[in-house]
Amino acid sequence: MFDFWMENRDMMRQLETVQNIMDTRLEIDDPEIREAIKHFAENGGKMVRPALFLLFSQLGNAGQSGDPRIAASLELLHLATLIHDDIIDDADTRRKQPTVQAQLGKDTAVYAGDFIYTVYFELLVETMAGTPFLARNAASMKKILNGELTQKALMYQTDCTREQYMQAIAGKTAELLSLACEEGAYFGGLDEENVLRARQIGEHIGLAFQIYDDVLNFSLDFVNEKPILTDVTQGIYTLPLLIARDKEPAVISKYLESPQALTKPELIELAEFVKSCGALDEAISEATHLTNLALSDIAHLPDTTSRKILTEVTNKLLKRQF
Amino acid sequence: MFDFWMENRDMMRQLETVQNIMDTRLEIDDPEIREAIKHFAENGGKMVRPALFLLFSQLGNAGQSGDPRIAASLELLHLATLIHDDIIDDADTRRKQPTVQAQLGKDTAVYAGDFIYTVYFELLVETMAGTPFLARNAASMKKILNGELTQKALMYQTDCTREQYMQAIAGKTAELLSLACEEGAYFGGLDEENVLRARQIGEHIGLAFQIYDDVLNFSLDFVNEKPILTDVTQGIYTLPLLIARDKEPAVISKYLESPQALTKPELIELAEFVKSCGALDEAISEATHLTNLALSDIAHLPDTTSRKILTEVTNKLLKRQF
Repeated sequence: MFDFWMENRDMMRQLETVQNIMDTRLEIDDPEIREAIKHFAENGGKMVRPALFLLFSQLGNAGQSGDPRIAASLELLHLATLIHDDIIDDADTRRKQPTVQAQLGKDTAVYAGDFIYTVYFELLVETMAGTPFLARNAASMKKILNGELTQKALMYQTDCTREQYMQAIAGKTAELLSLACEEGAYFGGLDEENVLRARQIGEHIGLAFQIYDDVLNFSLDFVNEKPILTDVTQGIYTLPLLIARDKEPAVISKYLESPQALTKPELIELAEFVKSCGALDEAISEATHLTNLALSDIAHLPDTTSRKILTEVTNKLLKRQF
Repeated sequence: MFDFWMENRDMMRQLETVQNIMDTRLEIDDPEIREAIKHFAENGGKMVRPALFLLFSQLGNAGQSGDPRIAASLELLHLATLIHDDIIDDADTRRKQPTVQAQLGKDTAVYAGDFIYTVYFELLVETMAGTPFLARNAASMKKILNGELTQKALMYQTDCTREQYMQAIAGKTAELLSLACEEGAYFGGLDEENVLRARQIGEHIGLAFQIYDDVLNFSLDFVNEKPILTDVTQGIYTLPLLIARDKEPAVISKYLESPQALTKPELIELAEFVKSCGALDEAISEATHLTNLALSDIAHLPDTTSRKILTEVTNKLLKRQF
């Protein structure tokens, strides 16, 4: 757990506190759902959203961290949307573990997600009364949902534009990372300029993060480990594919006639084409560009230890190997 | 729409304002979901929750109504839970209209419900900042969900107790009516005693309302109009059945061996038995008792026109014909 933070003992310790808050708050009468939610919550990934909140909050506050309940609220909102997304995507596994819906059925997964939303809401009310961030959270939730819906509306749309793709990922991924950074800066007591800067850093990190993730879906190194090109077969056309389509519409269109029916050799062929035509590299340079924007904004934040860590984390998170 | 309020022009007008707020706020980018949500929201039933809020608020405030956005928030929370419940129940129709999930699929219904939660949350933040009611709403949401989950856990449990049934309906139905009355009293500026009284009135109305609803499910008058005993065949064992089971366990248990497989003649037989053994009447007297508790509490509210209307409404809502 939190392996990503192994070299940062202090962050490990803080994220454990956040995890404990989540565990304590996720008490629900129904024992089966309680277990499923806890299992899911404890199988957390990198806890990127709480960590960004904590790091940004330490930029102010004389290096002290902001309220860990706010950090927990961010991860809970993330978890609730993941559980509901898995229902929509009919996903069986997430982070190599069975999804809540695979364990308990779609029906219970609906309630499990709803329950996490109420805990999230409870934490906001406790920690943010009297600040503009209650309203900001409501607006963020809307934007995240609209992003998910945009992605859903674009499924199997072979004429999906790159702008539409960016709009979808701005909602479904970047918004919450953006909120995490902004809340950290605000509750850390940074000035307005830096709060705005934090928001922008989060957005750029989020967009880059999602593009890299989408690039990874085209990576042939994964062929043996997991199904290849799962996005394409589900009708989700991401940046590398859209760039390839714009370069060579005739080649790509024949793959997209019925993407669900593509055989493994055809998928490998498509992945190789997306790479050989340069689309994968173009997508990677788009993500690198966004990462560099984030890094150059981070360089303008108050000169503290947290800024140093933020730079390292951004590099580690986004400059992954392909 | 709002036919229930036909004799009360003022309430009709106020509920139209509430409906307009809901319509305006339920703007979502996705046109298909927008239509489905609006259609569902406009097919609203009696708008009992907003109406109770408005009536209680008029007891204070020199007869002025409380903020219609709060009234809207109550109906939106109700709608969101209905949409998600219909997913769980696999329901095709609600209020004789196709459910959101029947129209757009389970997947979209998950998002549609989530979206309504965000609008609900947004309205709370706008209207209740600085009051204890943000936290109260979070607690209510939890209780409602726990009630739904209790009901789900009790499905097909032939040893379900009457106390467990009451606990389930206290959450899934009574809590929101209770919140509506309490918020009305609080935002209408009533004193603490009356706010507590309002809460209790709402709870009693809610419990009575649900018991009557469950009694109606056993009414043979509905045989020609809609499927009979839909609760029993879904494994939901409500008060009339539980009373009958306690009276004549041997008779009832044979029907509950595989309730999904009961034929129409067997269902009619079961309904007749529940009636002839006196269980239906006992359930009705339980509901009447709760109604009378509500009415006697209403009689202690400030002596105003709204109190008169509240008495009439409670009678009309709860003393339905069987």
